[in-house]
Amino acid sequence: MNTLFAMGRLQEAVKVKGPLCTGIDTDSSYLPPEVLSQYDSPSQAVLAYNLGLIEATAPYSACFKVQIAYYEAMGLAGLDTYVKTLKAIKASGVPVIADIKRGDIADTAKAYAKAHFTGDFEADIITLNPYMGFDTLAPFTEYISPEKGGKGAFVLLRTSNPGMVDIEKQELAKGGYVLDHVGSELLSIAEKYAHLYPGAECAPFGAVVGCTEESDARALRDTYPNIFFLIPGYGAQGGAARIAATLLDKAGGVVNSSRGILCAWKKDENIAAKKEAGSLTLNDIVASAEKAAKEGKADLLNAASLLGIK
Amino acid sequence: MNTLFAMGRLQEAVKVKGPLCTGIDTDSSYLPPEVLSQYDSPSQAVLAYNLGLIEATAPYSACFKVQIAYYEAMGLAGLDTYVKTLKAIKASGVPVIADIKRGDIADTAKAYAKAHFTGDFEADIITLNPYMGFDTLAPFTEYISPEKGGKGAFVLLRTSNPGMVDIEKQELAKGGYVLDHVGSELLSIAEKYAHLYPGAECAPFGAVVGCTEESDARALRDTYPNIFFLIPGYGAQGGAARIAATLLDKAGGVVNSSRGILCAWKKDENIAAKKEAGSLTLNDIVASAEKAAKEGKADLLNAASLLGIK
Repeated sequence: MNTLFAMGRLQEAVKVKGPLCTGIDTDSSYLPPEVLSQYDSPSQAVLAYNLGLIEATAPYSACFKVQIAYYEAMGLAGLDTYVKTLKAIKASGVPVIADIKRGDIADTAKAYAKAHFTGDFEADIITLNPYMGFDTLAPFTEYISPEKGGKGAFVLLRTSNPGMVDIEKQELAKGGYVLDHVGSELLSIAEKYAHLYPGAECAPFGAVVGCTEESDARALRDTYPNIFFLIPGYGAQGGAARIAATLLDKAGGVVNSSRGILCAWKKDENIAAKKEAGSLTLNDIVASAEKAAKEGKADLLNAASLLGIK
Repeated sequence: MNTLFAMGRLQEAVKVKGPLCTGIDTDSSYLPPEVLSQYDSPSQAVLAYNLGLIEATAPYSACFKVQIAYYEAMGLAGLDTYVKTLKAIKASGVPVIADIKRGDIADTAKAYAKAHFTGDFEADIITLNPYMGFDTLAPFTEYISPEKGGKGAFVLLRTSNPGMVDIEKQELAKGGYVLDHVGSELLSIAEKYAHLYPGAECAPFGAVVGCTEESDARALRDTYPNIFFLIPGYGAQGGAARIAATLLDKAGGVVNSSRGILCAWKKDENIAAKKEAGSLTLNDIVASAEKAAKEGKADLLNAASLLGIK
């Protein structure tokens, strides 16, 4: 049953390919100027890089994550690149998470669900912001059903930025933190839709849980054994593989690496030499990214293995 | 000084034109099928309606608000309509609020700020979701400065949906509600940037405060005298003009009406007659919207006047 809905397929992909989520959060500034200048526009350069990345890193990636903000920042041309990137990922057969962090009321939430679960911007799984209340999640949970595509979402639970103490980690008068209250709602959603996919090994809606603090990671993993996690904060954001591995226990999760892969060329000695020789091409940058994805996957599998997690 | 930054210009516009914010949150289903079928695509029909609406309702509108979700729901063609709608509003000279409710960390927030304060999607003021923490607001506050365009934002404080009790109105162990904590941050931002526009009559960043509960409205208005409000929940969403008027006191605000104006034709007797005669055109729908905007403005001014608010 696990393969009949997006979150289950993602969980299965991790078993086969390891827990790396390659983040295609491509800002044009992540490309060296020598390569950027070979294209008509930043959005064309980003598209070319993305297509190369998808092909090269697919073998090491359980899934891809696309951060829509970087595409919106390039205007309409950027969103055209976003659409073409989604199409290339779909063709690769690798699941895709659209990191959109939308959240709004009633009819507006319905419009966002239509926008990102169907049509030009269709993704398998999206990220959602629960701040305005749990009624704002309902238009998205409708798409969990097989008739609506078995879609999924990761709801923001415990993010990896310092500001997560401002609201998420505020203690409530009734006990627990704000994030516990969000977690309870995720458990309710899991229970409500469990009948759709009997025997599934994870809930259709997951949670975003950053890997920046070990005690939080352990506590959240134990509290939500059946919830699959999207784990930011690894690599460029500073989170350690060991904390990420803690979160990979039980229902498991995927560990996102964006800049660590996208900007791997900056630390690659081969690139410096080619730059000096004036022979740098996009393929060289993609090769650095491929190497980083391969190493990232191995690093995560090794950390999980040290913790005895399969 | 008030006219040198977007929020101040909005406050000035209210003094001249009244507090109505016309919400161009246009779903193609808001058009009658007879009119929709006269266009090549839903996004073309929406664009035509928007252009008519902007011209017809500008005299009664302190500002326009565009809800990006409805445009995203139509894919790339929808965002093309969004861009053309923003251009038409800019040409009209009326301030525009982009209701995007974005919120994300560090570099991603920077990308969203670039996306919606510059380029194709440039707006005067946007809406922001503070859930991930106050560090997520910083990339947007940079645009408050005159050199960066004097931009503004409305941060979600107390929304108009029932689910606002789930997080916004949760009581904190340290006292107050989550929303009070967000409000304190708004006051900090106001203080931090006050030197940029000395003598200004409102802060550069405002708050979204729904008009659905009178006691909340009074308390929030008194707690944040210097903060300009974007007020949803009037009209189609069920909020009374009197509660909205309470929120118009002190620094004031704009009261959004979207469906009440966009779908006014559904309650217009003239439309029914023209439908029957088979002579219905877009101009008739726009005329209904214009009448509704005019009446909405009068209703709000009357309610404010009854409360002794100028």
